[in-house]
Amino acid sequence: AETKKIAVIAGDGIGPEVVAEAEKVLQKVGEVFGYSFETEHALFGGIAIDEKGTPLPAETLEVCKRADAVLLGAVGGPKWDNNPKELRPETGLLGIRKELGLFSNLRPAVVFDCLKDASTLKPEVLEGTDLMVVRELTGGIYFGEKFRRQTEHGEEAVDTCAYNVTEVERIARQAFDIAMKRRKKLASVDKANVLETSRLWRETVIRISADYPEVELEHVLVDNCAMQLLRRPSSFDVIVTENMFGDILSDEAAMLTGSIGMLASASMGEGSYGLYEPVHGSAPDIAGQGLANPIATILSTALMLRLTFGYGEAADAIERAVAEVLDAGHRTSDIAAGRGDALSTTQMGEQILNAI
Amino acid sequence: AETKKIAVIAGDGIGPEVVAEAEKVLQKVGEVFGYSFETEHALFGGIAIDEKGTPLPAETLEVCKRADAVLLGAVGGPKWDNNPKELRPETGLLGIRKELGLFSNLRPAVVFDCLKDASTLKPEVLEGTDLMVVRELTGGIYFGEKFRRQTEHGEEAVDTCAYNVTEVERIARQAFDIAMKRRKKLASVDKANVLETSRLWRETVIRISADYPEVELEHVLVDNCAMQLLRRPSSFDVIVTENMFGDILSDEAAMLTGSIGMLASASMGEGSYGLYEPVHGSAPDIAGQGLANPIATILSTALMLRLTFGYGEAADAIERAVAEVLDAGHRTSDIAAGRGDALSTTQMGEQILNAI
Ligand SMILES: CC(C)[C@H](C(=O)O)[C@@H](O)C(=O)O
Ligand SMILES: CC(C)[C@H](C(=O)O)[C@@H](O)C(=O)O
Repeated sequence: AETKKIAVIAGDGIGPEVVAEAEKVLQKVGEVFGYSFETEHALFGGIAIDEKGTPLPAETLEVCKRADAVLLGAVGGPKWDNNPKELRPETGLLGIRKELGLFSNLRPAVVFDCLKDASTLKPEVLEGTDLMVVRELTGGIYFGEKFRRQTEHGEEAVDTCAYNVTEVERIARQAFDIAMKRRKKLASVDKANVLETSRLWRETVIRISADYPEVELEHVLVDNCAMQLLRRPSSFDVIVTENMFGDILSDEAAMLTGSIGMLASASMGEGSYGLYEPVHGSAPDIAGQGLANPIATILSTALMLRLTFGYGEAADAIERAVAEVLDAGHRTSDIAAGRGDALSTTQMGEQILNAI
Repeated sequence: AETKKIAVIAGDGIGPEVVAEAEKVLQKVGEVFGYSFETEHALFGGIAIDEKGTPLPAETLEVCKRADAVLLGAVGGPKWDNNPKELRPETGLLGIRKELGLFSNLRPAVVFDCLKDASTLKPEVLEGTDLMVVRELTGGIYFGEKFRRQTEHGEEAVDTCAYNVTEVERIARQAFDIAMKRRKKLASVDKANVLETSRLWRETVIRISADYPEVELEHVLVDNCAMQLLRRPSSFDVIVTENMFGDILSDEAAMLTGSIGMLASASMGEGSYGLYEPVHGSAPDIAGQGLANPIATILSTALMLRLTFGYGEAADAIERAVAEVLDAGHRTSDIAAGRGDALSTTQMGEQILNAI
């Protein structure tokens, strides 16, 4: 088979540790299924600030652009939190999204059996929760004009939120396509009673919905959605929303599953190009100690195989291996619930490798 | 004592029913404590659209302006949901906030003992939750310039989010003042890693914090706050944030208490002027049937007595009466958990009157 190119960005904190396990998994599925992967490493985030003086070096962008997909560990940490804007890891994150055209962020929020007690929600409320937040990622108030000016009421700061029809159409189509492969329910979240961008959003989603007659569409105001996620999480299938609302709601949805440390994500561009990363952050407090749980990154790799390369069988194999290892009772310390026999990052990686 | 003027806006749906009970409570505390209140009724929301052709008639604004405080039931309903923007109840709501200068929305989120099982959160997580969201209410993206324009990517919609130093200062001071009267903890919520308005917000809050050395201040990013509210709700005391974030987070916070039908709110202007209303909506499905629970509106009236008139003793008396009636086992159907002996709106009002 054709060699697939993967840009690997280990990043900061526990990033390098969890990415190393995911790379072993890639190699293993390559051997088992006869696929060929070529990885190229690149600096990004805090480590790139330290070594190259910028969170997103030009070489890194080039490595990503000549790859078919990007695997990202995690970026950021207190060390860079007080840097000026151009020297902050999140500036690199916004830059890479824009430069690679990653307009859609897919965040599955599912409950892992072994973690269902970790949620702060009652188990009966959580039962059956399996939703996907589709967040627009390169538009809205994140990327609009920003400035300061003097007014008679003192200095004023301004952020601009803009969406055009093309941007809404492509994210809406993607959300409908995803809904078609799931339970065929789509909740479009906006604030159409207040925002002009939301009114354009809603009109456009309604227009596109004509092409997806099988999908049951509901419009939910963002404040109401924040409530309904708490009240009836299992009733949601796919949620599609704009960048800022998606930032808030996808984190709320992830947290209510109790499984945030195990969740994968994909940021998709045109075609099948995608950047894959765990939902959890760089966890600087446990970095370098072999304590990190590599499962979210390994599951992000499975998403890559399925969504970018169309290697569904290999993706299934990884997901099955993870489930098997968890069923067999193996745990890293974050999910060990105080048990004394927690595995290290590499031990967990090895269990999963063996199960593939 | 001086006669206090109260503008009473019954509004739509269950609004008139719950407001009627709150008015009886006002009269009763007047008798018991020797206060004198004069009420003037005004049309607002859907009913004003129907009767006057506008959600916020000029007479209504005048009634509000010559009063010392406003008591509001609820506005809106499906009947007006598809109206053009100028003929929608929420347009009236935004208008009244702006016209009356109600820059600060106070939303206490507390757990009522009799409702603690109604939350979808585990009781041990909810234990001790008693927080107040202070939401900026007349600035930000709600009131910024909005327009459409043609671009090469199709029609584009634009919303503008602006905050000046004066606006942030006054809401920050109010939040610090409130924190001083509570547990002296303030979480300021922003998205300073992305938004210019948030950076101005954070700088200003930090500057104002110098005047409140006793208050423990933390800055929380909005996405993280949406998670932390779920993970550790009881660790929050006062949360202060801008208009759009406050809309989302105050609803999330209210819902997690499980007590949303019992929660009061206050929207404060300059000095002690305020508009008081229950957090719940107009509930058109049960309107006119005597089923509505008047407690949230009665507690909003208590807030009015305390915050606008400084009648702390009378406010305490109302709150005590509500607690007593609930402790005695009286319930309206929304909080009766299926028991057969639910009280009607007026019966519940009467129980509370008798307990004052
Ligand atoms: C770090 C920050 C800029 C980023 C965002 O807001 O998009 C993060 O919260 C995320 O969700 O990936
Ligand atoms: C009806 C709507 C305009 C309003 C808002 O967003 O402010 C409501 O959600 C609220 O919180 O009072």
